[in-house]
Amino acid sequence: MLLNFFFPKEFDFFNLFEQQVDYAVQSARKFKDIAATPGLIEESSYQAITHLEHQGDDATHTVIAQLNKTFITPFDREDIYDLTKQLDDITDMINTMVGRIKVYKILGGDKHLMEFSRVIEESVLAVAKAVKGMRHKNGTGAVLEACVEINRLENVGDAMRDAMLLELFESKTAIEIIKWKEIYQDAETVLDICEDVANVVESILVKQA
Amino acid sequence: MLLNFFFPKEFDFFNLFEQQVDYAVQSARKFKDIAATPGLIEESSYQAITHLEHQGDDATHTVIAQLNKTFITPFDREDIYDLTKQLDDITDMINTMVGRIKVYKILGGDKHLMEFSRVIEESVLAVAKAVKGMRHKNGTGAVLEACVEINRLENVGDAMRDAMLLELFESKTAIEIIKWKEIYQDAETVLDICEDVANVVESILVKQA
Amino acid sequence: MLLNFFFPKEFDFFNLFEQQVDYAVQSARKFKDIAATPGLIEESSYQAITHLEHQGDDATHTVIAQLNKTFITPFDREDIYDLTKQLDDITDMINTMVGRIKVYKILGGDKHLMEFSRVIEESVLAVAKAVKGMRHKNGTGAVLEACVEINRLENVGDAMRDAMLLELFESKTAIEIIKWKEIYQDAETVLDICEDVANVVESILVKQA
Repeated sequence: MLLNFFFPKEFDFFNLFEQQVDYAVQSARKFKDIAATPGLIEESSYQAITHLEHQGDDATHTVIAQLNKTFITPFDREDIYDLTKQLDDITDMINTMVGRIKVYKILGGDKHLMEFSRVIEESVLAVAKAVKGMRHKNGTGAVLEACVEINRLENVGDAMRDAMLLELFESKTAIEIIKWKEIYQDAETVLDICEDVANVVESILVKQA
Repeated sequence: MLLNFFFPKEFDFFNLFEQQVDYAVQSARKFKDIAATPGLIEESSYQAITHLEHQGDDATHTVIAQLNKTFITPFDREDIYDLTKQLDDITDMINTMVGRIKVYKILGGDKHLMEFSRVIEESVLAVAKAVKGMRHKNGTGAVLEACVEINRLENVGDAMRDAMLLELFESKTAIEIIKWKEIYQDAETVLDICEDVANVVESILVKQA
Repeated sequence: MLLNFFFPKEFDFFNLFEQQVDYAVQSARKFKDIAATPGLIEESSYQAITHLEHQGDDATHTVIAQLNKTFITPFDREDIYDLTKQLDDITDMINTMVGRIKVYKILGGDKHLMEFSRVIEESVLAVAKAVKGMRHKNGTGAVLEACVEINRLENVGDAMRDAMLLELFESKTAIEIIKWKEIYQDAETVLDICEDVANVVESILVKQA
């Protein structure tokens, strides 16, 4: 059919979203390892996180390039743009946080950092469930459940950060406070970005209802 | 008329904007109380600010849900989205700042904090005037005046923060500097967000001129 | 022709982009001077940076006002909006950084600051090349080359900031760390914004290909 010439076969954006979310999950897992491993971060772990961040960047560029070439999209172009950016932001933010851990010579095995890394992994796994569920017309229930869970974990993270900051300011030197305050804030930001993803996913579902 | 079936009666976005701005005004007033009350923040004041933040969130969600369902909007969808988000950001930022005051055990009665809280209240009241004035076709003059005032107060806040930082770095310990620097920055950010609202309001008026 | 009455002569957005980029280049150059001049920042240098920031603001407002009045634009309205905002952000961020230098009484002649100021100037000059090249249909090669250079310099800045932070935390007092950490971060943010410009420019070129 002639139209096929002008309108290329619909591009499968879901494949790329799933790839992006996969990099986020791998980053969150690697971060959990790093937080739990005593001593300075190993160069190989740092490289692994950086490599995932680059792969995430490539996937994001592919989505945006396709978006600029594709006439028919599975949902609003703007939502595709927001979703791909925010999925990328998860991997980016984990990479940023691990960069700080390296530069500040933060030692693994810290109880608080491990606690945060577990909540981050849970949240990113819920993001994976939400994003993968969007593909299935009758998966709306599971997607919304995952979004509720992501919101819950963001609140958990908020409270954790506040409790940790309170302790930090009462027990550490100014230099330690500067370092850890930034790490806790970065960790909480990962959870905020997961919540941003949940918000976009929910808004996409509402429009298609 | 059949069309009514497809196009529901135009939703009154202005009602919700006014509700959002009301939460912002109440938050700013409560913050002024907190800043002026000597000693640690009272739990009831903290709860009041948090409650306003939740109410603001609900109003924002309602606006966005309606936006996704409404075909005819009083002005550009994008501007409605920006306006609702930024009005919510005012209440959010005041809540964030008060959260820091609690965690850092900042004592009320501080001269600088009180000064900032008065400028914030003035700016949020000007935002209320601008937003409420948008409803009236012949209220453009008053709306623009309020926008000019919001811009003026943002500059006042900038200068205040710089003067306070200068004093801070010359008279306090590193740990005190870390705490207060963040509080002053948050306070200034409230004024920045008010300015963002003024910019959206002005751009809406320009398009309707 | 009647249509001319409704559709005013196409507004030359490129002129204004070039003006904006010019303010950014002048700001970057002035910042290089400031970084290299020993002692406290001179009031005249500070005023010059602030003046450029105001001129940049005016140019941005003109672009947005025109955008709201113009029916036919050389490329997507959203891209025009992003481009004008980000060009303004470069000048804004340099102004913010210089404001911190003044308030924190940072002395010129610092080796690291000078190093950063040179990379910033290079990056802003590449932004100028990219933006000015967009006007010419057969200048795509040079524009893309400039974008690659901007990306390279952002990576250079990242590595510089990390190396400087590492040194900072090992050799300075907490108060010095607080000051310099913010300055380095601001400097790196200028390079991030240049990269944002490169991304918008590339996406505009892709759509027109």
